[in-house]
Amino acid sequence: MEYYSKQISRLISELSTLPGIGAKSAQRLAFHILNMPTEEVQNLAGAMVDARQNVHYCKHCFSLTDDEVCPICSNPNRNKKVIMVVESTRDLAAYEKTGKYEGVYHVLHGAISPLQGIGPTDIKLKELMQRLQEDVDEVIIATNSSLEGETTAMYISKLIKPTGIKVSRIASGVPVGGDLEYIDEVTLLRALEGRTEL
Amino acid sequence: MEYYSKQISRLISELSTLPGIGAKSAQRLAFHILNMPTEEVQNLAGAMVDARQNVHYCKHCFSLTDDEVCPICSNPNRNKKVIMVVESTRDLAAYEKTGKYEGVYHVLHGAISPLQGIGPTDIKLKELMQRLQEDVDEVIIATNSSLEGETTAMYISKLIKPTGIKVSRIASGVPVGGDLEYIDEVTLLRALEGRTEL
Repeated sequence: MEYYSKQISRLISELSTLPGIGAKSAQRLAFHILNMPTEEVQNLAGAMVDARQNVHYCKHCFSLTDDEVCPICSNPNRNKKVIMVVESTRDLAAYEKTGKYEGVYHVLHGAISPLQGIGPTDIKLKELMQRLQEDVDEVIIATNSSLEGETTAMYISKLIKPTGIKVSRIASGVPVGGDLEYIDEVTLLRALEGRTEL
Repeated sequence: MEYYSKQISRLISELSTLPGIGAKSAQRLAFHILNMPTEEVQNLAGAMVDARQNVHYCKHCFSLTDDEVCPICSNPNRNKKVIMVVESTRDLAAYEKTGKYEGVYHVLHGAISPLQGIGPTDIKLKELMQRLQEDVDEVIIATNSSLEGETTAMYISKLIKPTGIKVSRIASGVPVGGDLEYIDEVTLLRALEGRTEL
């Protein structure tokens, strides 16, 4: 793209590395940024760098947060005896949007996937088992209903069963192959209400 | 979005101000950024700020560039006597992709639009007229074939005619590969009016 000067080309190529941003969108975004007030560009750039540098895992549930303990784990009104296991912080956010779940979470940061070489030690499973040594009534497994999510759910339920803690799986009101992040609140609630013991 | 910590919420809301980025995409981008290596995030953020701070108008053609004179105006092989007038630097890039145009450009940064309150003095028209005091053979008007683009083309041609410089307008008609069946009546009429003898 020699018809753009160096810095515009660099901006376009940096933007096109983002997911879902192709060459055309990157070009469109780049020219939008070039026309934004300098201060707004600095805010946007600053938000990226700050978030990346300061956000880390909550020491209890491993969701992404910039506090030592995330807002959910530090909320005294949440029931610490019920833990919902999700694959990602985005899935956690999807359940939080329902506004009805009062327990806490555990974010695995992935799912077991032999094809992609992701095993039980590559996700936050050991950390989940450690949490179960405290007083826990129920573990609700809310991994995606994909092959990897189901495999992970089965694996976790087999690990937890011997401890005597109740293990449940959200109902398959979630469409097979669906991604929690994109599912409407009503379906998510149905799935929660219809959870079955494993 | 209180279930995200402050910096994640800030990043998502900053990203969602970009064109074509809705709430879901902003969330997806934010989590992608949080999982990128810190160095890459800094590169991306740096590219934005650098481009915004250093990119300005080429002093000849008003395209966006980080040099004093853009790569096209400073290229000795380009014919400075032929000027193509476009609405935006993106339109310039579209013509550059053809690789066949050997003249230079003039970027208006907009089009005359009484409805949006954009008049002749709000675009780089005075600057175009100043360039015509030098040795220019032809002005090719390549504004969009929208109402605003056509109005602007008419206005410019009336301004330039008295100077004796040749003024032309890019043809409008059926796009190459286009199916007549799906093309609007106005375009079909234009194509008929602009027919050339074989």
